[in-house]
Amino acid sequence: MNYKLTISYDGSRYDGWQKQGNTDNTIQGKLEAALKGISGETAELHGAGRTDAGVHALAQVASFRLSSPLSPEFIKEQLNRYLPEDIAVLSAEEASERFHARLNAKGKVYRYSIRLGAVPDVFKRKYQYRVDAALDIDAIKKAASLLEGCHDFRAFCSNKRYKKSTVRTLHSIDIDLDKSELNITYHGDGFLYNMVRILTGTLLEIGLGEKKAEDIPAILESLDRQRAGKTAPAQGLCLVRVEY
Amino acid sequence: MNYKLTISYDGSRYDGWQKQGNTDNTIQGKLEAALKGISGETAELHGAGRTDAGVHALAQVASFRLSSPLSPEFIKEQLNRYLPEDIAVLSAEEASERFHARLNAKGKVYRYSIRLGAVPDVFKRKYQYRVDAALDIDAIKKAASLLEGCHDFRAFCSNKRYKKSTVRTLHSIDIDLDKSELNITYHGDGFLYNMVRILTGTLLEIGLGEKKAEDIPAILESLDRQRAGKTAPAQGLCLVRVEY
Repeated sequence: MNYKLTISYDGSRYDGWQKQGNTDNTIQGKLEAALKGISGETAELHGAGRTDAGVHALAQVASFRLSSPLSPEFIKEQLNRYLPEDIAVLSAEEASERFHARLNAKGKVYRYSIRLGAVPDVFKRKYQYRVDAALDIDAIKKAASLLEGCHDFRAFCSNKRYKKSTVRTLHSIDIDLDKSELNITYHGDGFLYNMVRILTGTLLEIGLGEKKAEDIPAILESLDRQRAGKTAPAQGLCLVRVEY
Repeated sequence: MNYKLTISYDGSRYDGWQKQGNTDNTIQGKLEAALKGISGETAELHGAGRTDAGVHALAQVASFRLSSPLSPEFIKEQLNRYLPEDIAVLSAEEASERFHARLNAKGKVYRYSIRLGAVPDVFKRKYQYRVDAALDIDAIKKAASLLEGCHDFRAFCSNKRYKKSTVRTLHSIDIDLDKSELNITYHGDGFLYNMVRILTGTLLEIGLGEKKAEDIPAILESLDRQRAGKTAPAQGLCLVRVEY
């Protein structure tokens, strides 16, 4: 039977989503180990987004198969019993036989959260990147609007040897400033390796006046990673939602 | 010169507000050490509320004196530079010569946060107490209204040998249920040792049907700690505001 899990995690102390050979301190690894404890089977979990080390998720989606079916409710309950306190299964459901969490994803929403000023929000300190300098929010908004749409985002991808298409559609970039918290929310049909963090780093450099909003078209056209901004730290990033 | 500090902290890894002899892992201790590093003076900090180990603060208030004055802005900036990331100074200001954060406090607001259900909110897991059982919210509201007002709260105090008056006025207890989060907010002129946690433990037992809302007047009258509910865990409690 094929299953769909929706998972929330605080990625602070993990080496990202994707399982790694020996030193396995990943979200996927923790979930697969818990699944094995419950079902006795070695199931492979396919996550919709392979979040980096330190990146969080409000609602990651993953799929897996079991040859001896268990009820979704039992799986959810037992996983939450055995998982560490910073990983939670929000829902478990039976999925159609061909459902694959990554291959079937039609869109994703990521949010990058920034704390402005010298004083951290102690309760969100692990989920925000702190910037203690004045930001030109209008310039950030202008640059964001130039990034929206269908573009080749190769300049915003860390993987230099990526062979496949680097064309993606960014449906929207929303800039929301609430007191000392700036949230940048990206809705797109897919994201390249480190793309959201490089987009954010670039928008921040524009906000700081180190780059100009008007430079965006040329950066996109260059297809050159060196032209875009720095990769913003992982801790401010959160996978909000996956769409099918 | 006399100063007033407003401080926010995640109390998870501290032994409470109040400084303790040798093993000093307290908020007061961390602040006094940082103050000494900045000013060279050994100043004693008076906190408005002596929060227990594991209790948090959105805006604790503390006062202290320096014989060689420093600007409040400098104090705030330097403290935030040297304090651990889970303690933040929100503001520093000059106070009148006679201001004392604890003795002058006229009111305080505490919030107790409860996560309902089997699934934790991973991002708030250190700031909520999780209850995985159905609660009768109407019964909790009824009990809360019976606790409001001026009463002798001796039954809701952990300190058996407390010699002073245990009469306090609870201006209000607000019960706010938002999806899976139940927040109980207490506004009073002062609180006894563990009072908010015992009030919360009692309200939860009423919500679970283990006690009745109608029992509240008899519990208050008994002045007997044994008649009230258990002391709810520290992690769900937060000092929200101090009034002068």
